Amino acid sequence: KDSYLVTLLPGDGIGPEITEATKKVLAVICEKSGFEIELKEALIGGAAIDAKNDPFPQESLDQCLASDSVLLACIGGYKWDKNPRELRPETGLLKMRKEMGLFANLRPAKVLSQLIDASTLKREVVEGVDVMVVRELTGDVYFGTPKGIDVIDGQRVGYNNMIYSESEIDRIARVAGDVASKRKGQLCSVDKANVLDVSQLWRDVVTDVITKDFPEVELSHMYVDNAAMQLIRWPKQFDTIVCGNIFGDILSDEASMLVGSLGMLPSASIGESGPGVFEPCHGSAPDIAGEDKANPLAMILSAAMMLKYDLDRPEEAAIIERAVEAVLDEKIRTPDIKQEGDGCKLVGCTEMGQAVADIV
Amino acid sequence: KDSYLVTLLPGDGIGPEITEATKKVLAVICEKSGFEIELKEALIGGAAIDAKNDPFPQESLDQCLASDSVLLACIGGYKWDKNPRELRPETGLLKMRKEMGLFANLRPAKVLSQLIDASTLKREVVEGVDVMVVRELTGDVYFGTPKGIDVIDGQRVGYNNMIYSESEIDRIARVAGDVASKRKGQLCSVDKANVLDVSQLWRDVVTDVITKDFPEVELSHMYVDNAAMQLIRWPKQFDTIVCGNIFGDILSDEASMLVGSLGMLPSASIGESGPGVFEPCHGSAPDIAGEDKANPLAMILSAAMMLKYDLDRPEEAAIIERAVEAVLDEKIRTPDIKQEGDGCKLVGCTEMGQAVADIV
Ligand SMILES: CC(C)[C@H](C(=O)O)[C@@H](O)C(=O)O
Ligand SMILES: CC(C)[C@H](C(=O)O)[C@@H](O)C(=O)O
Repeated sequence: KDSYLVTLLPGDGIGPEITEATKKVLAVICEKSGFEIELKEALIGGAAIDAKNDPFPQESLDQCLASDSVLLACIGGYKWDKNPRELRPETGLLKMRKEMGLFANLRPAKVLSQLIDASTLKREVVEGVDVMVVRELTGDVYFGTPKGIDVIDGQRVGYNNMIYSESEIDRIARVAGDVASKRKGQLCSVDKANVLDVSQLWRDVVTDVITKDFPEVELSHMYVDNAAMQLIRWPKQFDTIVCGNIFGDILSDEASMLVGSLGMLPSASIGESGPGVFEPCHGSAPDIAGEDKANPLAMILSAAMMLKYDLDRPEEAAIIERAVEAVLDEKIRTPDIKQEGDGCKLVGCTEMGQAVADIV
Repeated sequence: KDSYLVTLLPGDGIGPEITEATKKVLAVICEKSGFEIELKEALIGGAAIDAKNDPFPQESLDQCLASDSVLLACIGGYKWDKNPRELRPETGLLKMRKEMGLFANLRPAKVLSQLIDASTLKREVVEGVDVMVVRELTGDVYFGTPKGIDVIDGQRVGYNNMIYSESEIDRIARVAGDVASKRKGQLCSVDKANVLDVSQLWRDVVTDVITKDFPEVELSHMYVDNAAMQLIRWPKQFDTIVCGNIFGDILSDEASMLVGSLGMLPSASIGESGPGVFEPCHGSAPDIAGEDKANPLAMILSAAMMLKYDLDRPEEAAIIERAVEAVLDEKIRTPDIKQEGDGCKLVGCTEMGQAVADIV
């Protein structure tokens, strides 16, 4: 296949700027490698709320489902923060994940030697850290029912069900086993099985799947509180981590902070079949939106993940990843990754995108 | 009052050793300050399972409830790891918390200048960090019903209810407001209100309580994933943090790892009235049990918290805290806080306890 349809979701805040930078890089790689990507924009988040009064309108969903893949920038902003839940940008994100069946979220946290001093952790602790968090994305307390706020015996009671079925755990365990087997082959499953029934089932099913179908993968288990500590104490002990939705939300963000440069981290959300969604881990940074200060590298690296996972173009993905490293080697930096006295050149979002495109 | 009854729960692993060291310190402070503490031992955890086939027997509970306060060492060990849930040491801990109504867990994470290099974070990031995590301890997904593992449509489904009532949130918010007002007056409430109904109620009630009854306290809110990041990015931004049971489990452990020396951290679990339970944050370290290598300082500092919170002896609490710092100033270290080339003297558990007792 040498022609693809990709839905582009520029979203809010710095979204449009980093999207432009990423488009430039994709255009060059397509030209050089001789394939085509048709980019078709759609609305999500605040932009969709403003235009359609819906954070993820049906037409956006339809378009995403009809594409080979989806590239998302970022969503949210102060403007919609006080909206009721159903009219908040995040609600669009959750709806997209659920409706597109994106049950597996891959969050690499790899420390780049060029940016090692950006971490608040000591050099010797983070040097060489390369962790992949595989987070379940469509289950758990995020979507569990019953849920709500009721009045019981004269007082309000709020509740959400932390729930997983065997088949939900089975399929995320398979993704994690597959990911781990292509990395160092070490999988750490994180849960709270000493307290929670749902974690007990999680542990049983993960153990079954990995032992039976991924005999080459070395499986260990860790309680979530301990994992939160170990990520700080000695992150190099981890290769691949698999966990449920809420624990994954917390731990993947914690892991990304080890790297010290959130503006560098991509993510992939994938389903059983059909298009995945690729997006940077950072937010929409409304405070610097429109000022050409944003770092487009996380979105550019997300585009690389898209090439690898959805468009079956691992070589082109690698070209982009190497180009990003090369730009860092050339000491070009956006404000977020610039350190005082590092002797690097400060550039804006546009120039950074151009720099990567020039090398690709 | 100058005579108190304290239940002592030595528990498992290094528990008995650090208990001995702590007893020595308490004996000296009692003698010097002219009051009496009668220490009466009881069983919990693995020790109780072995002796009574119950991780927290009724007689232990009765004795705790009849005391002025409870001092716990630590529980657990490989030996009981494969036991069914009802015969595991942690189950005793959870039962104790619930039956004694210990709904508020106070977990200070204070970086001591003498031990700053033990942290994996950079000196400038952790220097002066002094965070107090106030964790709700008897609600949430830990105790929520319905819960279990059922077979539904031919497959197993595991679930636990993440649930909070208004009154549960109200009372922990009051403890947190009180704690914050005696510190720097900054309270950060952590939740996941952008996704969870239970968090929405949490946020509403915390806001009500603090705004109305603690006008001097400055309240902010943060999502749990962001909090996990911010604790690493810039921990000095936090003074007091309040959160639910599971988020508190994760964040308090993460916060304690910033300090780099888990062997130094005490905790207090308190209820509406009646005795509280004071215990170190670390585990039972079965690998070094009985070898006189354990660090008793966290338990000694827990005894100080007991003097302050339960026995209304803040001055004696401060004397112990100062004695611990003095011992560190004298460059005396147990293995866990000894750094290569720090020029300090390596001592065992007994000698460390004696060193504190000598200064008190
Ligand atoms: C915005 C929010 C709903 C979302 C989540 O909790 O999943 C975000 O934190 C993420 O990790 O993508
Ligand atoms: C042992 C376990 C049940 C317990 C908890 O999760 O509360 C522990 O992690 C703690 O924080 O005291």
